[in-house]
Amino acid sequence: MDFRFSTEVRVRFAETDAQGIAHNAVYLVWFEIARIDYLARFRDGYPGLRAEGIEALTIESHVRYFAAARFDDTITIRVRCGDLRGARFRFDYALERDGTAVADGWTRHACVDAQTHRPTRVPGWLAAEIATAES
Amino acid sequence: MDFRFSTEVRVRFAETDAQGIAHNAVYLVWFEIARIDYLARFRDGYPGLRAEGIEALTIESHVRYFAAARFDDTITIRVRCGDLRGARFRFDYALERDGTAVADGWTRHACVDAQTHRPTRVPGWLAAEIATAES
Amino acid sequence: MDFRFSTEVRVRFAETDAQGIAHNAVYLVWFEIARIDYLARFRDGYPGLRAEGIEALTIESHVRYFAAARFDDTITIRVRCGDLRGARFRFDYALERDGTAVADGWTRHACVDAQTHRPTRVPGWLAAEIATAES
Amino acid sequence: MDFRFSTEVRVRFAETDAQGIAHNAVYLVWFEIARIDYLARFRDGYPGLRAEGIEALTIESHVRYFAAARFDDTITIRVRCGDLRGARFRFDYALERDGTAVADGWTRHACVDAQTHRPTRVPGWLAAEIATAES
Repeated sequence: MDFRFSTEVRVRFAETDAQGIAHNAVYLVWFEIARIDYLARFRDGYPGLRAEGIEALTIESHVRYFAAARFDDTITIRVRCGDLRGARFRFDYALERDGTAVADGWTRHACVDAQTHRPTRVPGWLAAEIATAES
Repeated sequence: MDFRFSTEVRVRFAETDAQGIAHNAVYLVWFEIARIDYLARFRDGYPGLRAEGIEALTIESHVRYFAAARFDDTITIRVRCGDLRGARFRFDYALERDGTAVADGWTRHACVDAQTHRPTRVPGWLAAEIATAES
Repeated sequence: MDFRFSTEVRVRFAETDAQGIAHNAVYLVWFEIARIDYLARFRDGYPGLRAEGIEALTIESHVRYFAAARFDDTITIRVRCGDLRGARFRFDYALERDGTAVADGWTRHACVDAQTHRPTRVPGWLAAEIATAES
Repeated sequence: MDFRFSTEVRVRFAETDAQGIAHNAVYLVWFEIARIDYLARFRDGYPGLRAEGIEALTIESHVRYFAAARFDDTITIRVRCGDLRGARFRFDYALERDGTAVADGWTRHACVDAQTHRPTRVPGWLAAEIATAES
């Protein structure tokens, strides 16, 4: 898969568990950090989306764990956005450490009105910026 | 210290870290569970407080760690509330496992208006119920 | 899907996020709690597995989020285990609140030697107990 | 208090709670990040300490919360180490956002043998490096 953007996280001690490795749930937190860093390049990013009264809910998530991530490891998260259709969009992720695949996965999201939690279209400016970034 | 109420938590695997023990930050989550269970006996408890438009902010916290807590340990949390003065109150905690002291600590809180985050008095009904419970 | 076992979690305040709902990563923590409660019925359960020098790594996880879970909600987690093949097995989950589907998902796991992290077969006693429980 | 070292964290969405602010337990995770970044300047830092078979347990923690930290805020954590006596040492922290005090606190720690969890002196090289850094 073709990724044009990446960000990094360093594994926190608090993110490890008694197996001595990063806990499996933490990967979804890292995915979220990657999404937010991805969107931060556009206008006001995810905080801007929230300021418009729009929340992006996570409606599905998937992770494949290939190799353990350990305390203090620097993990590169490659991330791309696509499949924008109405209120919905999808992110794909690939995690690496020194060129070794650590994990990959994807999440699907739906924009909703922050008050009513009813579906609302992805704002045009954001759809346009993502289309440009991924083209 | 005299405690009239207690609740229990079982150490989750996700709460352990690479030292093989419960992470030090998790104790503040357990303190919060104990506060919420404590308040749940009164009217609508903490959810009821929030429904009245009041948030209880944590303004100070203190933990002393005596013995490691490990995965699957059942921890008894003794808890009491006191020092109600205007908007402020305090909780004390003592954590035990099979009679062994694991940790203790306290937190201080301030009631604020959920919208403005300005201080607001502890509701009279709650102050009265706590006074009765602790007398 | 047919589930013969279930457990419960109550949504912790610390598990909510600024959307006012349980954070999407927390579901994987709840899945883990359900697995551990499921296994706790057999011999020494997951702690017993670890005492034998075996770790069960999570190698894949999937969650579909249907409805928001909120602070203090009681969530019933139905859980079943299957697809035992050599070192690997799979858990399925269905989360409900008062009969409403909140989420579902599955995780896949591999038993490894705790020291070497090399694959090792699911112990015979555990495979037998799971087969009995699910038959 | 005089601080010669600082590091930064950006508030993660997963670190917020339904009050819309960073959860009170997260500050202890940030303190830990600051400790680890502080130690990373010396030899192999905290991972190096662990490689020597030494764990640094947290034996006490204290936080004062002055102002809410919100999603995407950049928090500067000033940190210093002192009070080295035998196996024990102490860290102090001051958290700021754009010059505004957000929180402060301290933690106390004890070095223990990773296997036996018995107290062991802070390694001489580390005591010397901290003394130099803070003088």
